[in-house]
Amino acid sequence: MDFKTEFKPLTVQPEEIEVKSFEMITEELGAHSFTQEQYPVVQRVIHASADFELGRSLVFHPRAIEAGIAAIRGGKRIVADVQMVQVGVSKPRIHKFGGDVDVYISDPDVMAEAKRLNTTRAIVSMRKAVKEADGAIYAIGNAPTALLELIRLVKEGEARPGLIIGMPVGFVSAAESKDELRKLDIPFITNIGRKGGSTIVVAAINALSIMAAAEA
Amino acid sequence: MDFKTEFKPLTVQPEEIEVKSFEMITEELGAHSFTQEQYPVVQRVIHASADFELGRSLVFHPRAIEAGIAAIRGGKRIVADVQMVQVGVSKPRIHKFGGDVDVYISDPDVMAEAKRLNTTRAIVSMRKAVKEADGAIYAIGNAPTALLELIRLVKEGEARPGLIIGMPVGFVSAAESKDELRKLDIPFITNIGRKGGSTIVVAAINALSIMAAAEA
Repeated sequence: MDFKTEFKPLTVQPEEIEVKSFEMITEELGAHSFTQEQYPVVQRVIHASADFELGRSLVFHPRAIEAGIAAIRGGKRIVADVQMVQVGVSKPRIHKFGGDVDVYISDPDVMAEAKRLNTTRAIVSMRKAVKEADGAIYAIGNAPTALLELIRLVKEGEARPGLIIGMPVGFVSAAESKDELRKLDIPFITNIGRKGGSTIVVAAINALSIMAAAEA
Repeated sequence: MDFKTEFKPLTVQPEEIEVKSFEMITEELGAHSFTQEQYPVVQRVIHASADFELGRSLVFHPRAIEAGIAAIRGGKRIVADVQMVQVGVSKPRIHKFGGDVDVYISDPDVMAEAKRLNTTRAIVSMRKAVKEADGAIYAIGNAPTALLELIRLVKEGEARPGLIIGMPVGFVSAAESKDELRKLDIPFITNIGRKGGSTIVVAAINALSIMAAAEA
């Protein structure tokens, strides 16, 4: 590519930027009560949001990290509620273990069923996923209705997720759906309150896959 | 799909949830100094983040909204820095006017050039975009290096964006890149500080396309 102006090479490499960012996060966060295993997820969520309040609001089921690492190493599927989560997850480490990221929300049968039942595609996509992806990591960053339906299916014994990462963002039902998730005794990663979103869920998965690859 | 348990139809429809969310945002935000034209962008950014601090930190060039609406109506391209922004943007309203969302960061020539120059793919993707997408809306939610390179190309007279939406998130260079953007006298939407991200940039574009479609 030809340009009239000179190109200045970078003086700081991307890897150095990440290291420096992570140091800043640890220093600014200060004292916290997360375990050593949970902290990489907290750190990467703060890195993706620049929001310490959001980072501090994370809540982990006691078996969440080991369950997430085991699912990734076992090549289990990751089920995302929306395409933004699907494309955001770093794939090489997931593929290395034979896994991949699926999203069902735009499948023709899901769209047809949602119309027939007069409900959301997010809900129907969870009903399809639990039939196809036993032991999967469910990554929900957008739709509280998807998370509430998944929780219902778990309670009814129709879903057996390996891990639920449930951090939908929003003003109606988002915080409430996370309150329900925290009552389950299966592995989950969530947060308290309205904040969350696709980039946050992606950060959590990427942190888990880095741990899975590093310790393997 | 067969399930053992009964499906409960939704009592609240998604459209009602959005209306209720937007009412809550307006009520909780209270007094602000955004114009009537800017407010839909602020509202949708808060909706996507549940973060009033982030919403209040938005800064608009005086011509930003009219420039964004004109670009969308004129079928100009939207250039995203990362795929998460590309897939997150609601397409029907963009396509209606003949536009689309492009992302260059994984193009083979961009990857090769970045390696050759020992720089980031984000930087090289901007250099390619300005040659191919005159008058485009640039939507940068992830890479401060992309935003800094785009600003440099504007100053050198090598880029003529219709609008720059620059809200990368991060601890190193993100806030600084936005400080530089605010010094330009071309249409921009940005914010003050470290926060931002793909979902925030997507929210801003969706707000603009709704305005473009509604007033057309």
